[in-house]
Amino acid sequence: MRDLDEIVLGITDLDAEHMKAAQERQNTLTKPAGSLGILEQISIRLAGMQGTTRPVIGKKTVIVMAGDHGITEEGVSAYPADVTAQMVYNFAAGGAAVNVLAKQAEANVVVVDVGVNQVIDSKQVIAKKVRPGTANMTKGPAMTRDEALAAIFVGVEIAEEVIAKGASLIATGDMGIGNTSASSAIISILGSIELKDIVGRGTGVDDEGFDRKLLAIRKAIDVNKPDSQDPLDVLHKVGGLEIAGLSGVIMACARRRTPVVIDGFISSAAALVAAKIAPKSVNYMIASHLSAESGHSLALAEVGLTPMLHMNMRLGEGSGAVIAMNIIHSAAKLMQDMATFEEASVSEEIPVEKIK
Amino acid sequence: MRDLDEIVLGITDLDAEHMKAAQERQNTLTKPAGSLGILEQISIRLAGMQGTTRPVIGKKTVIVMAGDHGITEEGVSAYPADVTAQMVYNFAAGGAAVNVLAKQAEANVVVVDVGVNQVIDSKQVIAKKVRPGTANMTKGPAMTRDEALAAIFVGVEIAEEVIAKGASLIATGDMGIGNTSASSAIISILGSIELKDIVGRGTGVDDEGFDRKLLAIRKAIDVNKPDSQDPLDVLHKVGGLEIAGLSGVIMACARRRTPVVIDGFISSAAALVAAKIAPKSVNYMIASHLSAESGHSLALAEVGLTPMLHMNMRLGEGSGAVIAMNIIHSAAKLMQDMATFEEASVSEEIPVEKIK
Repeated sequence: MRDLDEIVLGITDLDAEHMKAAQERQNTLTKPAGSLGILEQISIRLAGMQGTTRPVIGKKTVIVMAGDHGITEEGVSAYPADVTAQMVYNFAAGGAAVNVLAKQAEANVVVVDVGVNQVIDSKQVIAKKVRPGTANMTKGPAMTRDEALAAIFVGVEIAEEVIAKGASLIATGDMGIGNTSASSAIISILGSIELKDIVGRGTGVDDEGFDRKLLAIRKAIDVNKPDSQDPLDVLHKVGGLEIAGLSGVIMACARRRTPVVIDGFISSAAALVAAKIAPKSVNYMIASHLSAESGHSLALAEVGLTPMLHMNMRLGEGSGAVIAMNIIHSAAKLMQDMATFEEASVSEEIPVEKIK
Repeated sequence: MRDLDEIVLGITDLDAEHMKAAQERQNTLTKPAGSLGILEQISIRLAGMQGTTRPVIGKKTVIVMAGDHGITEEGVSAYPADVTAQMVYNFAAGGAAVNVLAKQAEANVVVVDVGVNQVIDSKQVIAKKVRPGTANMTKGPAMTRDEALAAIFVGVEIAEEVIAKGASLIATGDMGIGNTSASSAIISILGSIELKDIVGRGTGVDDEGFDRKLLAIRKAIDVNKPDSQDPLDVLHKVGGLEIAGLSGVIMACARRRTPVVIDGFISSAAALVAAKIAPKSVNYMIASHLSAESGHSLALAEVGLTPMLHMNMRLGEGSGAVIAMNIIHSAAKLMQDMATFEEASVSEEIPVEKIK
């Protein structure tokens, strides 16, 4: 297996010189300085990633990683585990929300089976199954450390391939019945946040289901005693295959200086794993939406990200990240195409001493 | 002049039957019910506006209304008043932020001079000047009641024309140095909100400028004593020509059952005027972003709207509303193109009694 250090050590700082030049250009564009808010910040960060004052967004791809979760045996989800595989076929057929939203954003959808608990027979799905679902983590580790590493490298390889084919903006997406349980465990341990502040209703469990879910996650943590200082220990004991895969996607994007848009709760768990393994990977992450799932804002804050969309979504699949892709594209276009004060003969701000 | 009642009385409730059918269709689509959050709500509201279960978004247009403000004499803005006209030419030439963002959203930009304090000589600008800027409202009414009505009807006519040409989604945009002052006054009076909770930095005045601005708006209210129960009285005494025009755009959209996307602080003042004159017009409004301008969230709440974009923008021009257009388009597409549980052979939620 490849060495994770090769990826981690290859992730660099943003290009400060080009960010400074990009900030200067923003200040010459026909608008009050800073008035485009997050759009300006994104354009400047893109400049730092791409090493140019005029960043360009070309091809877009959302990578949807699918995997199953043994903890579903504990009745933590409102949906049967079979839905993971069924939704993978739905992605392949183009019928899911992420397909419709990706079309609107002119993004490709790449679907990866990194650990679905059924044989997936579709040419539209990249077969990279590390194992058929995780084990029930209330009874032992979700997977071995090597399996977690293998799932990370599935993500790394897919992202590298997609980037090699020309993708300049990548979004993370997930599918896995039970994966809000694994994500909650990861965020609680790696973020040192009380479990009860993180666990939410997922796809919509009722009160009883919620209690069962909280209890099951707590048991998984008690049984496995993950080491909060060792992200891989946490990932393999209480994580998921698709979460590991997405953390690989994120680190590979960072390694290739490619912006990666973080979707909802599950993707934020993957982002937190990536941030703990490779702190500089945060430079290349762009948050998209604030999920209705209660722990999401805490997870994003722990990574150091601020979401721009408040849509009350809680679907996963990359659905929120894909919506943000158009906005990120716009941020780059503004830097490219807006007129400067000079070009448009627009007066600049009145010097303070001359007002009134 | 046409009678405003003709517009107001023509605005109807949303079509409850089609909204119910749209909600039922949403519940058959392959996702947990409600998990698309605001996207689902928008699709259902669009169904109620268009009177169909499958709403369609076709042509999009942002209407940018420009007007000047006599209160700029009081030194309330960081930019000289000339910038209004200069920016109108910038819109006409395609160099402003709203042009770039509209292109990304595949929206037309319609620029209207409803009260710029200079002769605007451009074929790209619709000449509908009611008067060359408002009077300095710290010394008397900003305009006459008839002028306010005339400006409203400029908006009504432009919106009707744009809709007649096929626009199915309209966004509001504004340009007018000094217009955060007029908007603050309107929102304070019509919303019964303390002025100090509403007034912000606009395009970026410094501390001294901020104090001057607050004082000038307070003086304008004291001098004119607008009647909070009479929206037209408020609009003509402490309002602006472009704000009046936009309230006309909003009411005309509602009259034609066409969704209208409300931009930032200025547009929210126009939305509040429209909501007070024609309460049912709120049915057809969709909020876009939450501005960095401090009073914006209060104004939107008073109208009864919730913004979906938190971008820290404070530019106006329709820049935030145009970004939301793509998202609204996506909401309609999801309703059209997502597979149902049955079509995709995906299992539905587990009945409560069968879990575990």
